[in-house]
Amino acid sequence: METLAAAPVSLFGAAAAMHRAQPSATAVRVDAQTLRARIETLSTHGRPVGGTFADGVSRVAYSDADVQGRAYVIDLMRAAAIEPSIDPAGNIFGQRAGTDPTLPPILFGSHIDSVPTGGNFDGDLGSLAALGVLEACTRAGIRTRHPLEMVVWSAEEGVAFGRGLAGSRIVAGDFKPADLDQVWNGMTRADAIRRIGGRPDRISDAIRSKGAHHGYLELHIEQGATLERQRVSVGVVEGIVAIQRYDALITGAANHAGTTPMAERQDALIAASHLTLAVREIVTAQPGRQVGTVGHLDVEPNAPNVIPGTVRLTIELRDLSPETLASLGETIRRRADQIASATRTTIHLTSLGGNPPAVAATNVQRVIEQASARLGLTSARLPSGAGHDAQMMAQLSPMGMIFVPSIAGISHSPKERTSWEDCANGANVLLQTVLDLDRV
Amino acid sequence: METLAAAPVSLFGAAAAMHRAQPSATAVRVDAQTLRARIETLSTHGRPVGGTFADGVSRVAYSDADVQGRAYVIDLMRAAAIEPSIDPAGNIFGQRAGTDPTLPPILFGSHIDSVPTGGNFDGDLGSLAALGVLEACTRAGIRTRHPLEMVVWSAEEGVAFGRGLAGSRIVAGDFKPADLDQVWNGMTRADAIRRIGGRPDRISDAIRSKGAHHGYLELHIEQGATLERQRVSVGVVEGIVAIQRYDALITGAANHAGTTPMAERQDALIAASHLTLAVREIVTAQPGRQVGTVGHLDVEPNAPNVIPGTVRLTIELRDLSPETLASLGETIRRRADQIASATRTTIHLTSLGGNPPAVAATNVQRVIEQASARLGLTSARLPSGAGHDAQMMAQLSPMGMIFVPSIAGISHSPKERTSWEDCANGANVLLQTVLDLDRV
Repeated sequence: METLAAAPVSLFGAAAAMHRAQPSATAVRVDAQTLRARIETLSTHGRPVGGTFADGVSRVAYSDADVQGRAYVIDLMRAAAIEPSIDPAGNIFGQRAGTDPTLPPILFGSHIDSVPTGGNFDGDLGSLAALGVLEACTRAGIRTRHPLEMVVWSAEEGVAFGRGLAGSRIVAGDFKPADLDQVWNGMTRADAIRRIGGRPDRISDAIRSKGAHHGYLELHIEQGATLERQRVSVGVVEGIVAIQRYDALITGAANHAGTTPMAERQDALIAASHLTLAVREIVTAQPGRQVGTVGHLDVEPNAPNVIPGTVRLTIELRDLSPETLASLGETIRRRADQIASATRTTIHLTSLGGNPPAVAATNVQRVIEQASARLGLTSARLPSGAGHDAQMMAQLSPMGMIFVPSIAGISHSPKERTSWEDCANGANVLLQTVLDLDRV
Repeated sequence: METLAAAPVSLFGAAAAMHRAQPSATAVRVDAQTLRARIETLSTHGRPVGGTFADGVSRVAYSDADVQGRAYVIDLMRAAAIEPSIDPAGNIFGQRAGTDPTLPPILFGSHIDSVPTGGNFDGDLGSLAALGVLEACTRAGIRTRHPLEMVVWSAEEGVAFGRGLAGSRIVAGDFKPADLDQVWNGMTRADAIRRIGGRPDRISDAIRSKGAHHGYLELHIEQGATLERQRVSVGVVEGIVAIQRYDALITGAANHAGTTPMAERQDALIAASHLTLAVREIVTAQPGRQVGTVGHLDVEPNAPNVIPGTVRLTIELRDLSPETLASLGETIRRRADQIASATRTTIHLTSLGGNPPAVAATNVQRVIEQASARLGLTSARLPSGAGHDAQMMAQLSPMGMIFVPSIAGISHSPKERTSWEDCANGANVLLQTVLDLDRV
């Protein structure tokens, strides 16, 4: 892949001049060997005993492995002369000063906590690439107008206590202080935050205001197979989808599977099967990337010789557009009524709520696209079906996310992989995007 | 309902003469008040503490309640001068001699063990009516040619150890002695049989040979709603349906419900839903009384935000005709292949075997029908969708079953009910059928 440095795409009139005035910006690169070595070293904190890189990692937030992994990153920051600071929520920040002290920082980073038996790229890549970007700027002698700020968010995966007090959520001010009293494994959330150097007693000081950042960027693995399938190097995230969940309680009549004629049955599993297929049919009936899943289903009494009397299932819908979700939800509700009537059962659909969507700023998407092109990398726009810290940061400033391909789309698994070349490409797109955003 | 004594239907030339020689046979009746009182008293053995008759019974085989209930019946038999004998399998037998000692007995009865939180009619009615029939004959001074033998079968419900060593199965010789070593609640099956007075060390002595009985009759509640719906008093059982069970293992790919586009999913629950609906569709596509049920279904990993990777479900088919079952099974298997291919999953169907059908002897069905008519009772033929001890006894001699209506078809529940009038009608049809069969 060759760079397009010979024909740089200049985005903004004024910025273009500044661009040329600096050392050739596209020649600045994140050190790919160092990035790889750091991802490999970080993977040892939480690696199964006797395992290798291929065995993945269990670095659940607030665990000893998490504390060790954070200490490793903090040491790297210090070695790079990036003074680490831990906010009351336990997030690790580090700034590199800009030339204009009145401008807000450009923030970028990710997380390093993992799911149990997770992979070595989810979060780790974006966190270590953020440090790599700061180092590359220093190495190239680049002076940015805005301060550049890296972040390692705490507790992104929501394994221990759920996502109520994820570090980025606290910074966005979207939390309930009462959640600090939650207990997990005999440890309160407040104690957990203290374990990673946070200050639960001053948790509200972690909140940042709207406009606190010039922009927020996050490099992350796709965790899906769209980029790989399209043979595209860079994913330009259009936004993080909204989620809407429903609980369906289907009530029929449990009865003897031998003595109850077919015509007299009120079989809750027959109704559930119709509903499960209807969700898929309704979601795929219109063009778009919306998804719908029945992932959880329980039958009662669940015996081979008893007609199912009750079924409980979940319906999860995801799309960038809350209007699409609402309309899908309505169609499913109407269909559920028809199914209940046709199967002589009752179906109660209860909304379990969900997450609003987080749209990536259009201009940031454009900048990522152009930065990719300048680096000779193909790119494609796509939504993020998974949640990310960027979701919370979109509430404070323009947000953008850069995806790199996940091999076979596998994530949250020791088999999670992204090629080292794609890791380096993603880090360089992040670097170029940061520099471009600095100019606008 | 009036009797047809004025115009008795004589079935068999020779027998008709004998019939008239005896005291008016249709005037002989089982004592309905006593039958009711005994069903009510038996219900106290295994009744929930502080409960009433309406709270049903838990008299699981080999439990203290079972031992007490059996002792109650044995006492009743002794009081009626029917000497009880317990065979090595724990079945309770009692004979009333006939006039021709070379003839085999007519056997009739049922069981008194129950499912947990079961009802007061399933088995109890047929067992206590059998005793009532013997008493009625004695009271009326009737001499039969064949010995009349009542039986209370042990462990019909198969709750504790499964049905492998049900009392009637042992008598039919259809058991594996190794099953005596099965352990349930810390008790071996051998100990369990010893608890109810059986002799596991001599278990094979319980086997009776083909032709050991002149016939076998069983009065039972329908456990379905066909008779009630047809407003018919007596069900003439055509046979006990065959059962065929399959286990279906459906394998797709568990994946992120947010990041996996609809077109790329291999959703095991979508395949399972198609299969569940296909079973119903295939079973109802042809006329007949065959039934098919998916009663058990487990999803993995069963999380709202994960596409189901694996589903395991059972398919149970029942019909009188094993050929129909085989053909339904083949159709389902072909459809499963199509579903697997359309959903990009694999479906492995494994036969779990089942029970062969037990056909009621045509002449016994005719005798039950005519006995009902003579008593002024409407009757209808129907299959038994549930299994009964009669199933095993059909291997030794002509078999017949008499059903009486279950209110709302409810069974295996404290709500199980049959009107006292229907109980008495059933007992009298049993009595008349016994007397008629004695003449052929």
